[in-house]
Amino acid sequence: MTTRTGRHFLHIPGPSPVPERVLRAMDLPVIDHRGPDFAGLGKAVLEGAQAIFQTRSPVIIYPGSGTGAWESAIVNTLSAGDRVLMFETGHFATLWRQMAARWGIEVEFVPGDWRRGVDPARVEAILSEDRSKSIKAVMVVHNETSTGATSRIGEIRKAMDRANHPALFFVDTISGLGSAEYAHDEWGVDVAVSCSQKGLMLPPGLGLVALSDKALAASKTATLPRSYWDWEDMLKPNAGGYFPYTPATNLLYGLREAIVMLMEEGLPQVFARHQRLAAATRAAVEGWGLEILCQEPSEHSPVLTAVMLPEGHDADALRRLILEKYDLSLGTGLAKLSGKVFRIGHLGECNDLTLMAALSGVEMGLKAGGVPHTRGGVLAAMDALRSGLDD
Amino acid sequence: MTTRTGRHFLHIPGPSPVPERVLRAMDLPVIDHRGPDFAGLGKAVLEGAQAIFQTRSPVIIYPGSGTGAWESAIVNTLSAGDRVLMFETGHFATLWRQMAARWGIEVEFVPGDWRRGVDPARVEAILSEDRSKSIKAVMVVHNETSTGATSRIGEIRKAMDRANHPALFFVDTISGLGSAEYAHDEWGVDVAVSCSQKGLMLPPGLGLVALSDKALAASKTATLPRSYWDWEDMLKPNAGGYFPYTPATNLLYGLREAIVMLMEEGLPQVFARHQRLAAATRAAVEGWGLEILCQEPSEHSPVLTAVMLPEGHDADALRRLILEKYDLSLGTGLAKLSGKVFRIGHLGECNDLTLMAALSGVEMGLKAGGVPHTRGGVLAAMDALRSGLDD
Amino acid sequence: MTTRTGRHFLHIPGPSPVPERVLRAMDLPVIDHRGPDFAGLGKAVLEGAQAIFQTRSPVIIYPGSGTGAWESAIVNTLSAGDRVLMFETGHFATLWRQMAARWGIEVEFVPGDWRRGVDPARVEAILSEDRSKSIKAVMVVHNETSTGATSRIGEIRKAMDRANHPALFFVDTISGLGSAEYAHDEWGVDVAVSCSQKGLMLPPGLGLVALSDKALAASKTATLPRSYWDWEDMLKPNAGGYFPYTPATNLLYGLREAIVMLMEEGLPQVFARHQRLAAATRAAVEGWGLEILCQEPSEHSPVLTAVMLPEGHDADALRRLILEKYDLSLGTGLAKLSGKVFRIGHLGECNDLTLMAALSGVEMGLKAGGVPHTRGGVLAAMDALRSGLDD
Amino acid sequence: MTTRTGRHFLHIPGPSPVPERVLRAMDLPVIDHRGPDFAGLGKAVLEGAQAIFQTRSPVIIYPGSGTGAWESAIVNTLSAGDRVLMFETGHFATLWRQMAARWGIEVEFVPGDWRRGVDPARVEAILSEDRSKSIKAVMVVHNETSTGATSRIGEIRKAMDRANHPALFFVDTISGLGSAEYAHDEWGVDVAVSCSQKGLMLPPGLGLVALSDKALAASKTATLPRSYWDWEDMLKPNAGGYFPYTPATNLLYGLREAIVMLMEEGLPQVFARHQRLAAATRAAVEGWGLEILCQEPSEHSPVLTAVMLPEGHDADALRRLILEKYDLSLGTGLAKLSGKVFRIGHLGECNDLTLMAALSGVEMGLKAGGVPHTRGGVLAAMDALRSGLDD
Repeated sequence: MTTRTGRHFLHIPGPSPVPERVLRAMDLPVIDHRGPDFAGLGKAVLEGAQAIFQTRSPVIIYPGSGTGAWESAIVNTLSAGDRVLMFETGHFATLWRQMAARWGIEVEFVPGDWRRGVDPARVEAILSEDRSKSIKAVMVVHNETSTGATSRIGEIRKAMDRANHPALFFVDTISGLGSAEYAHDEWGVDVAVSCSQKGLMLPPGLGLVALSDKALAASKTATLPRSYWDWEDMLKPNAGGYFPYTPATNLLYGLREAIVMLMEEGLPQVFARHQRLAAATRAAVEGWGLEILCQEPSEHSPVLTAVMLPEGHDADALRRLILEKYDLSLGTGLAKLSGKVFRIGHLGECNDLTLMAALSGVEMGLKAGGVPHTRGGVLAAMDALRSGLDD
Repeated sequence: MTTRTGRHFLHIPGPSPVPERVLRAMDLPVIDHRGPDFAGLGKAVLEGAQAIFQTRSPVIIYPGSGTGAWESAIVNTLSAGDRVLMFETGHFATLWRQMAARWGIEVEFVPGDWRRGVDPARVEAILSEDRSKSIKAVMVVHNETSTGATSRIGEIRKAMDRANHPALFFVDTISGLGSAEYAHDEWGVDVAVSCSQKGLMLPPGLGLVALSDKALAASKTATLPRSYWDWEDMLKPNAGGYFPYTPATNLLYGLREAIVMLMEEGLPQVFARHQRLAAATRAAVEGWGLEILCQEPSEHSPVLTAVMLPEGHDADALRRLILEKYDLSLGTGLAKLSGKVFRIGHLGECNDLTLMAALSGVEMGLKAGGVPHTRGGVLAAMDALRSGLDD
Repeated sequence: MTTRTGRHFLHIPGPSPVPERVLRAMDLPVIDHRGPDFAGLGKAVLEGAQAIFQTRSPVIIYPGSGTGAWESAIVNTLSAGDRVLMFETGHFATLWRQMAARWGIEVEFVPGDWRRGVDPARVEAILSEDRSKSIKAVMVVHNETSTGATSRIGEIRKAMDRANHPALFFVDTISGLGSAEYAHDEWGVDVAVSCSQKGLMLPPGLGLVALSDKALAASKTATLPRSYWDWEDMLKPNAGGYFPYTPATNLLYGLREAIVMLMEEGLPQVFARHQRLAAATRAAVEGWGLEILCQEPSEHSPVLTAVMLPEGHDADALRRLILEKYDLSLGTGLAKLSGKVFRIGHLGECNDLTLMAALSGVEMGLKAGGVPHTRGGVLAAMDALRSGLDD
Repeated sequence: MTTRTGRHFLHIPGPSPVPERVLRAMDLPVIDHRGPDFAGLGKAVLEGAQAIFQTRSPVIIYPGSGTGAWESAIVNTLSAGDRVLMFETGHFATLWRQMAARWGIEVEFVPGDWRRGVDPARVEAILSEDRSKSIKAVMVVHNETSTGATSRIGEIRKAMDRANHPALFFVDTISGLGSAEYAHDEWGVDVAVSCSQKGLMLPPGLGLVALSDKALAASKTATLPRSYWDWEDMLKPNAGGYFPYTPATNLLYGLREAIVMLMEEGLPQVFARHQRLAAATRAAVEGWGLEILCQEPSEHSPVLTAVMLPEGHDADALRRLILEKYDLSLGTGLAKLSGKVFRIGHLGECNDLTLMAALSGVEMGLKAGGVPHTRGGVLAAMDALRSGLDD
């Protein structure tokens, strides 16, 4: 018989569990978004977001989603018929391609097998061949939420530099920001998009965009129609801590608190924690004798791990069983991975014991679901966690 | 000296105060937006929103703002170069005109004095003259948040029918929904836009759009580019209670609770309460011998009352003084009304004593600020409230 | 017809409304009361409570009520057959007399008319006559919650000193602490009792006791049986920030936050605010032509005002009508005042506009209930508030 | 290095973690405890508490602690010099003995080894020998929180019946109620005491007492002094849903919600869940090769498990290490068990994965702390949980 008593364990790769401090910070009366008290809030979140992106350029915060942030990146910088370079790293890369196409952008889409990130050498090669410099932007997903493979953004930047190509560099760090190392200015990214419900540990409802001078310059001449997502409309009132239309005040309360929490822990510590938990998760998967989707060790995601099921076993049936028996939510396989993988999120406020709870639920579920596996993956995870602690 | 102890009184015309029941409903863990439990939430808010709009056609709920909802109305139904009819009823009507212009829409903008709603006879006359039926849409603001004047939507519909004109009918009921009577199907509206932070008593962060079959048909042929705001992308997963991208889950928790509260009270009772409070507010203003901005009694807003200050007195200085001395937030005069009016919001969870608190703060502020007025407006408001209760 | 929409106005003389900051501080997971993190909380509230009582002697915090705190005062310091001096200032003084009697204490109960505090001269006279020094304690209610009359504790102390009497001095400041000026050490009080739900702005559930060296010395020889309320059991673990049995952790979270709020405002400012609000309330009552129960101006309570109804009018019927029509809770007349008075609480997080809301509700209620009164008491209150602000 | 990110795991044997539903139910404005709305709350918790105790006799709810509830049991039913029978089952039994002694009660204290519950045969033997029927009450701890051994209350009742002895039967079910099966009426208990922070899943701050007709009759003639704890003072207003002094309103909000949750799950299901989790915990302990303190299998507690450490290993050092490294709170060894055992709480809102998190933390801690043990106790726990689910 099932039990749904007590705490639900949410281990999808976002939305991630919202810490009680953040929930409680949001649970306060809304204030006048044009009143004097608001400016302090506005500045705190706008400046705090810069610290998280590691940038001195402005960050824009929309009421919206990560999808909306992507739309803002496109409509502010490009014009119909522009050519961009994208890579098929997984489901979300594919979605961005579709979005670009809707806006009349011509996408050069490099095929991929959904089991690794973007190859920097490939970027260099393609850009080097683009003698006419007709490629306006290179668009890369930092952490592919559908596959658990990251792309090495810093190396791709270097590849672009080696090719001496003037293209803008767009990065989707929707599930990376606040979990996987990300250094906007150091890596020379022009537009990075993210959202509230992943590493920032907030409920969904905010889209974030980090810019560069080059991106802002591009926005002056780009001709796609835009209004809601227009950067210029935002940046003017943002300078004083205000917004051009009513912002999502209570989510901003939460964002202010989440930024404080990330800074209290320290970004390097936050990134290291995610790496430790990811390593322990992979140890468990390997302990069970199951295959990890991402095949490139240097690109294993610190945010989530996608686990392949043996032929003939339905990952969604397993997920349903685990949800019913153990009140644990795991991520589904998306698009062509449907039924073939499940995804374990280990991001946000996740810690050692939260992870062990989730891995225990998976191991019990594998047994209950009749999925062939080696007993004791959780022991391997505990070993990995302990050795991580000793470092 | 000032005191900021205790409860702040938020009487701007939105965001309106969020009831504790709604805040507490939002203060819960986020859930998997693709999991089985989510569908119940999704259906509850989508169907509940239909009840609030009084429509059987679908309602779409975006992570976004009312501004975003307006953008969705335009980009889903119109094509560049389309001609629409709008009326200068105030600041927000003017903003929608600007937005339409950005999308390449040709706006016929009927000038107005910001002191009344749209004249149905004028609508009929203009449409009757449009022999070529080139006007694709009539766009009206239901409750002008900047002026406190409502437009009579039902009568405008009849005027359109008398003109026998096929134009779509768009209504901005951003600050009207859930406060001022609104009957989407009965009034034959094709697209109505609203948001979370007014009569729905939620924090900001959601944009809502109610449709009609005719609007949906228009969306099949409209050619403006769109992706985030695309209705079709929304309606497919909405049918099962899901969303195409991560929805603002915790705001949806709040929306579910707010809808329950509105239905417990009953929509007719909600509208009557707003009318009572508005009448009491006008009684106070008249008692003080001040002038109400809206000059047409049948168009006085149940949501807010804009009060004109005598020549030589700065409404924003008065607002600052009242905020500092009495911790009461009033709405500023927008655009050309800046410094000339202040606005008293009496919407959402406002009740008799909350209103009396606000009116007392205004009366004390008028005295402290040296604004000429007759003492005792609050007594007139109390008389109005009592007589309202006896009905 | 009635409306119960929106905010309830709680203007009984305690429990007082709990500020959202305090509620939210309490809304957090409970922690191990024997773990290392607990000591910080324990010390914060124990030291903070000393600051509120204005004492360097220990303060004890019980899971319990003010009634329990009184019981602790008696059982720790007295022995069966001991003689104490009390004054009939109202209902609560009478209850303490009954409690003392249950413990076998012999009470000298000086009769009173429930319309004033304790007369210091009377204290001096009685003590002077007690040649044998058989009176072990003088017990006075600081702020009689049933009548709205305070006793002048500092002057009573001086009277005791003039009589050169060794009696202990017990003060019930249950509804006084944090609202009416109270200076434990300066006034030479030996045992003061209070609770969480009045000036401390917390939910009910904590009883507080402030001691003196003399009281502690008395506890060494007192022979009444005690266990739960035993001071010595408390003081030992309290020194390290711990408690002998599980404390009411979440109420302590709230207490910590409430103390921070009181200190942010400043105790002198807190007391002055209560005096301003009380003066405005009395101005309203006088404006209505009604009689205030407390007849001694120097003893008018800053915490609550008891209002007498004209002969033939039932105060409880009026309270019911006001609750139903205006969602405003007023205090009932207790014991022999039942039906004759109602009490307006203006303590805790009350501010100018909260008070005006309450007074407006009373004025509308007087009219609706057919109670003879002069219109416009609220205007007198507004005048009083403004002049208070100009000081 | 340590990490304190994310969720703390509270696995002491009370206070137990408070479910978010309960926390949120408490996070609401306090109401007038004498107003008409209060009666509904009062009746809900008083009747609901009867359902939890499984009794038709009244239940009394104090602002206080379990310690206070015990005091009420003694002072309402006994007189100085009365003789009672108690059993040394552990630390709490010992504390009750001390409390009784303070009230002048003569305690027959049967020695024990702290590793089992009360032997019903022993009860029968002692009572049978008490020819003069001088024993006024038999006092038993249902679930010894210090040892993890339960006493078989139903069998003890039968033993008393076989001895045909008129003694009252007192049960301390402080950590049993709502977790371990308890049937007040069926088992013929006269006074049972409990508190809020264990199986009722509330923050600390309430003491509960369930009565019987026989206990009420005893209270008429008992002569110990009492006031705060007096049952009669409580029962009169309780009949209408009210309390004689201000009750802990917000804790009562929480109690109402907790009772709803227990009833939704069903008491038999609640008890079975605790048994499953306890069995899994014992499987882990046995898997590690460690010794469980309780030696009588039929008396293993469903609420907590006390684990003995091998000679030469300090249980408190282990607990500190586990708290620091894994943010997991375990219970300390009390009194003579100090340093020798640690206690794992598995009560309240605990579920399978919460327990696995805790057991993983213990296993990692045993390794990190150098405590000799067999690897893989968590696997045994998972096997136990799965087999429990299949039942």
